[in-house]
Amino acid sequence: MMSNRIITISREFGSGGRTIGRMVAERLGIPCYDHELIDKITEESGLLKTFVESNAEDIQGGWFAMITGRDFYGHSLQDDLYLAQAKVIRELADKESCVIVGRSADCILAEQGNVLTVFIHASIEKRAERARTQYGLKIDDPESFLKEKDKRRKAYYQLYCDRKWGATQNYHVALDSGELGLERCAQIIASLY
Amino acid sequence: MMSNRIITISREFGSGGRTIGRMVAERLGIPCYDHELIDKITEESGLLKTFVESNAEDIQGGWFAMITGRDFYGHSLQDDLYLAQAKVIRELADKESCVIVGRSADCILAEQGNVLTVFIHASIEKRAERARTQYGLKIDDPESFLKEKDKRRKAYYQLYCDRKWGATQNYHVALDSGELGLERCAQIIASLY
Repeated sequence: MMSNRIITISREFGSGGRTIGRMVAERLGIPCYDHELIDKITEESGLLKTFVESNAEDIQGGWFAMITGRDFYGHSLQDDLYLAQAKVIRELADKESCVIVGRSADCILAEQGNVLTVFIHASIEKRAERARTQYGLKIDDPESFLKEKDKRRKAYYQLYCDRKWGATQNYHVALDSGELGLERCAQIIASLY
Repeated sequence: MMSNRIITISREFGSGGRTIGRMVAERLGIPCYDHELIDKITEESGLLKTFVESNAEDIQGGWFAMITGRDFYGHSLQDDLYLAQAKVIRELADKESCVIVGRSADCILAEQGNVLTVFIHASIEKRAERARTQYGLKIDDPESFLKEKDKRRKAYYQLYCDRKWGATQNYHVALDSGELGLERCAQIIASLY
């Protein structure tokens, strides 16, 4: 239903994007789905199983697929997971207004006109601090750790969305949570709803 | 003086960044310096002349400099202009709170703690429309025209700031003026001041 309004939040690891998502949802009185919740819904929906089975019928890979986990078209279990999650995200967006954090929801819902897309980032220092204090992560070399995290998110996004993760042009709003603070970010996003 | 507060606005051509800058300045009751005004102040200051002359004394290029407009270190008139403009921008920021649009002010003032850095962008369609209606530009191929404009801004920024123009990480706030509207953008920026 196009009368629903969706806010998607993409974020650098440790930038507090998930917390901001929850704050926004609370302000607006709508649910917030983060990646854990989406994974859980996907699992319970049985969708992943359906995708894997339907693709299994088409597998043309033989020993190649067995060894690599991919068929000759390069189709993998990760692809099935993406398709299942994308279906879950579309169903959530159809059902009700909500905030969705992560899982490339912005590009999955890109064709819809009712989506506000947000990107949250922060400096390496601020993110390392947050990773330490909030997640209790003990990191020897936070810069490498966080850059590796970013690299994976970027590669995932590039693969499935075919565009650049974190490029300003892909988002209606991009905010530096380290400089502005989580509360201020939540306030801006909610005000745009 | 660190009690001044500065807002820098970088923007894609045709995104309305200059208009937003003026709106913000009006809301806050502070002056707005755009690139034309900065060029004018630079010219009147005589700074450019000083830079050119002081560099002329060091020129080691001979025929090379005469042909290329650069000495052996690659120093050019454009570099002198950049240095003169940078000095003007630093003086403006020292003097009073203000909005500065363009001219890489964000990276020139990067070391200061009293700067809010903003990036304004919009889709090619919205920018082409704005270029037509606001600037009266007649463009056969708006996409190439705007991409060429962006490419130049990007290259300039890369050269003098050694970082990526338009990358979310370089700005506290990045806004899609085409989707949010100029008024809403000005409102958000002013609220963060």
